[in-house]
Amino acid sequence: MEFVDAHASFIQELDKLKAVKRQVRLPVDANRQENSAEHSWHVALMTTVLAEYAAEPINIARVVQMILIHDLVEIDAGDMFAFAEASDHAEQELKELAAAKRIFGILPEAQGQAYLKLWLEFEAAITADAQFAKCMDRVLPVFQNMRAGGGSWTRHKVTREKIINRNALLESAAPALWRYVNQQLNIAVEKGWLQQ
Amino acid sequence: MEFVDAHASFIQELDKLKAVKRQVRLPVDANRQENSAEHSWHVALMTTVLAEYAAEPINIARVVQMILIHDLVEIDAGDMFAFAEASDHAEQELKELAAAKRIFGILPEAQGQAYLKLWLEFEAAITADAQFAKCMDRVLPVFQNMRAGGGSWTRHKVTREKIINRNALLESAAPALWRYVNQQLNIAVEKGWLQQ
Repeated sequence: MEFVDAHASFIQELDKLKAVKRQVRLPVDANRQENSAEHSWHVALMTTVLAEYAAEPINIARVVQMILIHDLVEIDAGDMFAFAEASDHAEQELKELAAAKRIFGILPEAQGQAYLKLWLEFEAAITADAQFAKCMDRVLPVFQNMRAGGGSWTRHKVTREKIINRNALLESAAPALWRYVNQQLNIAVEKGWLQQ
Repeated sequence: MEFVDAHASFIQELDKLKAVKRQVRLPVDANRQENSAEHSWHVALMTTVLAEYAAEPINIARVVQMILIHDLVEIDAGDMFAFAEASDHAEQELKELAAAKRIFGILPEAQGQAYLKLWLEFEAAITADAQFAKCMDRVLPVFQNMRAGGGSWTRHKVTREKIINRNALLESAAPALWRYVNQQLNIAVEKGWLQQ
């Protein structure tokens, strides 16, 4: 089998995710904004570490693959802050679907379709694999903001309720982790990092 | 099973890899230096895309897990340019082993041992999984430098022979990709991006 130029183009396209900035700042690196590529790595590795907390059987290879691609759409659509208005989210979803079609469309057709399907599964968050992947993506900022003394929560005056709602899938997907997150959020409120 | 604080500490430690700079520059983001966290993501995702080129059967979940952790030692040991002197490499190896023990030692013991073993397997590059993982790590800059018009090769006056040697594992691990890389290096020499 000869090497397909489409693979090279896709690999080269990936570099662009390193330029997409998120709300999280990195105290370890001059407080610069985190980008979505390094975030994706962090979620993926964290997931291999936390897989044992999954309440239902998961296929870790699929979960990690979902996570590795989950933010690619931001190359075209940009990152949306988790607590933006609902109407903005609807528009963002349309942009992201178009982005997924363009970006996975760079790959050879059958492979591109398989990745698109996997991304849609992640977005729908119905299967056990997708629910665990989604939980991991959402819980990572809890660890980061706790370490940073509030971080993006404090800057944006986020409430405890918003973080609880955002991580609610954890309750069934990884109950021990859910209890840990609740404890951490209580600490954050006590410290004034998170609004009551 | 209750959530173990060691997991939280390990996840928080990972942020530090985002501050480790590599020789590759990113034309997509103001030509800044790439960091080892976003690089790890790029290699991991590339690997899922290129798995079909593997000449021997590989366990893609293990390969990706190796890649996700392969650069963690740089948190303590820093990144070494691929074409540094041999004596510097020997010293670096000792530093990296100490780093691996410290960093994986943050995890609960059995899990930390498993990750350390996986990292050592990657470093030894003897198993099919480790050889494929190593190839992926080494070939990515070929795609990046070809896209960047020479990139770190041109800045450091690297020779074609060095890149061939560095990617030699590809010949047996992924022959079609090896042929592609050879074609690309010929183009790079013709264009004056790489020394003959």
